[in-house]
Amino acid sequence: MSDRRGRARGKAAAAKPERKVNYHNLRNPFVPQPAFSEDEVENIHNTSLRVLEELGMKVLLPEAREIFAKAGAIVDEETEMVRIGRDIVEQALATAPKSFVAHGAKPETSHTMELGSLTFMAGAGCPHASDRERGRRPGTAVDFRELMILEDAFDAIAMLGPAVEPQDIPVHIRHYETMRTQIEVSDKLPFVFCRGSEQTEDCFQMLSIAREVSREEFEDKVWTKTIINTNSPRQLDIPMAQGIIDFARAKQLCVMTPFCLSGAMAPITVAGGLMLQHAEALLAITLAQMTRPGAPVMYGSFASNVDMKSGAPAFGTPEHVKSTLGAGQLAKRLGLPWRSGGGSAGNCNDAQAAHETEMAAWSSVLAGCTMVVHSTGWLEGGLTFNYEKMVTDMEMVQQFAELCDKPEADEAALAFDAIAEVDPGGHFFAAEHTMERYRTEFYEPLVADWSNFGSWSEAGSLTADERATAIWKQKLEEHQNPKRNEGVMESLDAFIAKRKEAGGAEAVS
Amino acid sequence: MSDRRGRARGKAAAAKPERKVNYHNLRNPFVPQPAFSEDEVENIHNTSLRVLEELGMKVLLPEAREIFAKAGAIVDEETEMVRIGRDIVEQALATAPKSFVAHGAKPETSHTMELGSLTFMAGAGCPHASDRERGRRPGTAVDFRELMILEDAFDAIAMLGPAVEPQDIPVHIRHYETMRTQIEVSDKLPFVFCRGSEQTEDCFQMLSIAREVSREEFEDKVWTKTIINTNSPRQLDIPMAQGIIDFARAKQLCVMTPFCLSGAMAPITVAGGLMLQHAEALLAITLAQMTRPGAPVMYGSFASNVDMKSGAPAFGTPEHVKSTLGAGQLAKRLGLPWRSGGGSAGNCNDAQAAHETEMAAWSSVLAGCTMVVHSTGWLEGGLTFNYEKMVTDMEMVQQFAELCDKPEADEAALAFDAIAEVDPGGHFFAAEHTMERYRTEFYEPLVADWSNFGSWSEAGSLTADERATAIWKQKLEEHQNPKRNEGVMESLDAFIAKRKEAGGAEAVS
Repeated sequence: MSDRRGRARGKAAAAKPERKVNYHNLRNPFVPQPAFSEDEVENIHNTSLRVLEELGMKVLLPEAREIFAKAGAIVDEETEMVRIGRDIVEQALATAPKSFVAHGAKPETSHTMELGSLTFMAGAGCPHASDRERGRRPGTAVDFRELMILEDAFDAIAMLGPAVEPQDIPVHIRHYETMRTQIEVSDKLPFVFCRGSEQTEDCFQMLSIAREVSREEFEDKVWTKTIINTNSPRQLDIPMAQGIIDFARAKQLCVMTPFCLSGAMAPITVAGGLMLQHAEALLAITLAQMTRPGAPVMYGSFASNVDMKSGAPAFGTPEHVKSTLGAGQLAKRLGLPWRSGGGSAGNCNDAQAAHETEMAAWSSVLAGCTMVVHSTGWLEGGLTFNYEKMVTDMEMVQQFAELCDKPEADEAALAFDAIAEVDPGGHFFAAEHTMERYRTEFYEPLVADWSNFGSWSEAGSLTADERATAIWKQKLEEHQNPKRNEGVMESLDAFIAKRKEAGGAEAVS
Repeated sequence: MSDRRGRARGKAAAAKPERKVNYHNLRNPFVPQPAFSEDEVENIHNTSLRVLEELGMKVLLPEAREIFAKAGAIVDEETEMVRIGRDIVEQALATAPKSFVAHGAKPETSHTMELGSLTFMAGAGCPHASDRERGRRPGTAVDFRELMILEDAFDAIAMLGPAVEPQDIPVHIRHYETMRTQIEVSDKLPFVFCRGSEQTEDCFQMLSIAREVSREEFEDKVWTKTIINTNSPRQLDIPMAQGIIDFARAKQLCVMTPFCLSGAMAPITVAGGLMLQHAEALLAITLAQMTRPGAPVMYGSFASNVDMKSGAPAFGTPEHVKSTLGAGQLAKRLGLPWRSGGGSAGNCNDAQAAHETEMAAWSSVLAGCTMVVHSTGWLEGGLTFNYEKMVTDMEMVQQFAELCDKPEADEAALAFDAIAEVDPGGHFFAAEHTMERYRTEFYEPLVADWSNFGSWSEAGSLTADERATAIWKQKLEEHQNPKRNEGVMESLDAFIAKRKEAGGAEAVS
């Protein structure tokens, strides 16, 4: 066992107040679970290439069509359709890096991204926020800041994500607020929403100031990431295409994530939905590599299904699980790090939401996913970020992090002597083997209450959802911003003030 | 794909009212997940044999000690300690059947039990029952009957289990009520609680009457099962030892399940807890085989841990998951079918309870478990069977059953033509590919509500727990007892009346 957690073992442990954990640079401990045979995976991959060659994809940004045309793709300017030969896709896949480091402000917040590594991100992109005290409301800057603090507070969340959209800030200056907040409250890698080159460039410059790097140094490492969603089926819109180009040029991370819900924006079958998703992700990866070979990209899967009675998106369904397992096989076929997506379609932090989130997370982990997105807090299929669900889901995420450590199996762990010491029908509470380990051996729950029914009733019969409120409030109270070098935040604020004075940056649509 | 579900595909499906499922004789679709290396597994196995050889186990029943002594074990009558050489254990393992059929009343309720097959059982052995309408109370005959009906109602529950203890019936006649109820309401295989030879024999005779078989025919097949819990550490009490002997003699199924909670009745380490569990299970299996070679047995794991602050049992913890994965490796080492255990230590049907139940169930399934016990309804670490949790957990169990079918991957499933048919940015709702499949392609949820926040709020903002009440009530209303041949129930009742008149059968302790 690597003992990555740095648990103090032996008698010295008795002096320690509690178990210390370190969930940094986790490696996925699970044997990958296939949904398809190798032949079937190859067939899906080849059929995706056929879609790109024969049917093509509609690309709304002229600059992107130009890049494709220059690379040898067949472009119809009238219909905006782009058809790409498999030779071009293969050339692109050859230059996409299979491993890179996503840099936070410090080594402790930097993560290697490659097949085999395992990171978790909180729910992202929600228009609403909700908690038990303030109810459900459109997301604000206050919510955004609080949620970035909560994402910072949990070691098992590797990077920041756009938990909630701060709708009280006008879009042309919103990116200043979101990037500044991320830089201010956390050392973890921040995200950028792609709403046009001007906003993206603002964010790159802000981050260069914060990390104190030149433009050349900025482009030398991965400092930030964005999520690219295709407009499934077979369409890439203007801001997303521009985002790919801008991020590739600056060698920052693009996560290529089609949004293929089977039965709605994708074929109703698991294999059909995956095949379309694969085609769209390949086109996006190709655009990045044609823009700048070697640009860091991740393959993305968000394949689930809709309820055929209502058209409502569903998550954590058997079809979602199968799709995610299949996506893992396709990502492995490409050799690229990849993200999956989870969460719940439920409307409150109840048993349904927990079951759906578990199903989605287990399928991600078993599929060998590099970055499990929406692993906490995500309700209503992403329409609401719920504070209490962030806490109850963190219990699950921390347990996955714990599972990355294999159990010890040396002679001491096997405990023959301890068994010899304890009489038949007795107990191990007082055994030396127990005393040496009792403070550090077991995972300590965050929100789970294991007290008996009487004690639990006397304490008010609180559900996990109800108990979670005090936990996120405490995390907010305990938060301290990381220290930046002298003058850094001032330079950042001067940049923002200058840009705001110049009118900010309008979003492109 | 086997299409075991018998889904009608193609246009004919449009006429069908809904998707039909068949969760019978499931095969585990997952690649087994190891917790230990092969060498470590071998080392645990060998250390367990050393425990049996050098330390031994206290066996409280004289008849059992006699059987061990006759087989060559070293027995100390004063201390009641039995030490068994590995040659005796190996001889026992050689006669334990690796595959057998557990017979319900019909082929549709019979299940092959072997490594690779996958069955689910509901929560078992709870002193209390609870639901939203009647609250939490000591279990009664009414609860018992209702819960047997609910276990019958769900196809994915393979066999009946002792959900709740009907404490309003005196123990000396309780087994008549529980066996009669199981026979009356369901064709699924019933269980027997071992509380002495007289009660066990009563149950065997009742079941022989119900299945209309002679004693010889009864002993020719597996018609019922019991769970044997050792009194960990290293003690086998009188009713449990007697149960092994009685069941082995009648060639009925004994599931050998030590109750090794790490930190309390077992060493605090995962490997140590497993090693003790393995030793105790091996002794129990050996007793069965020495009693009657070829007696059907299952290996049993219930290894989890306690909270070291309070001593309270915990379930669905990282340590529980690792223990279950390790137990799967040990069962595979023996080649025997095996059961694991799950459920939650929580006090209500909330997110905590769902998370814990999912963790336990996933580890069971990934460990290659043959029979997942306590998969639904189990709260407070088994002190309460909750009706609503039975329903919300069934969603999870049904999803596991769905995952046993691989997704289709033929040309039709890949849907190239459907993708060609739909315009970029369009949707697949009206595609022929969708129309042909929309009634049958997706799993239909039992209790999950995927409606949007507005509709959900208008309908009363009900949690999954609240919605579940109507579902179990409906299942109770819809229930119809299976038909037995003329005179069968009358013969059964005559037997019971005669036995009651003779004073019933006192429990042995």
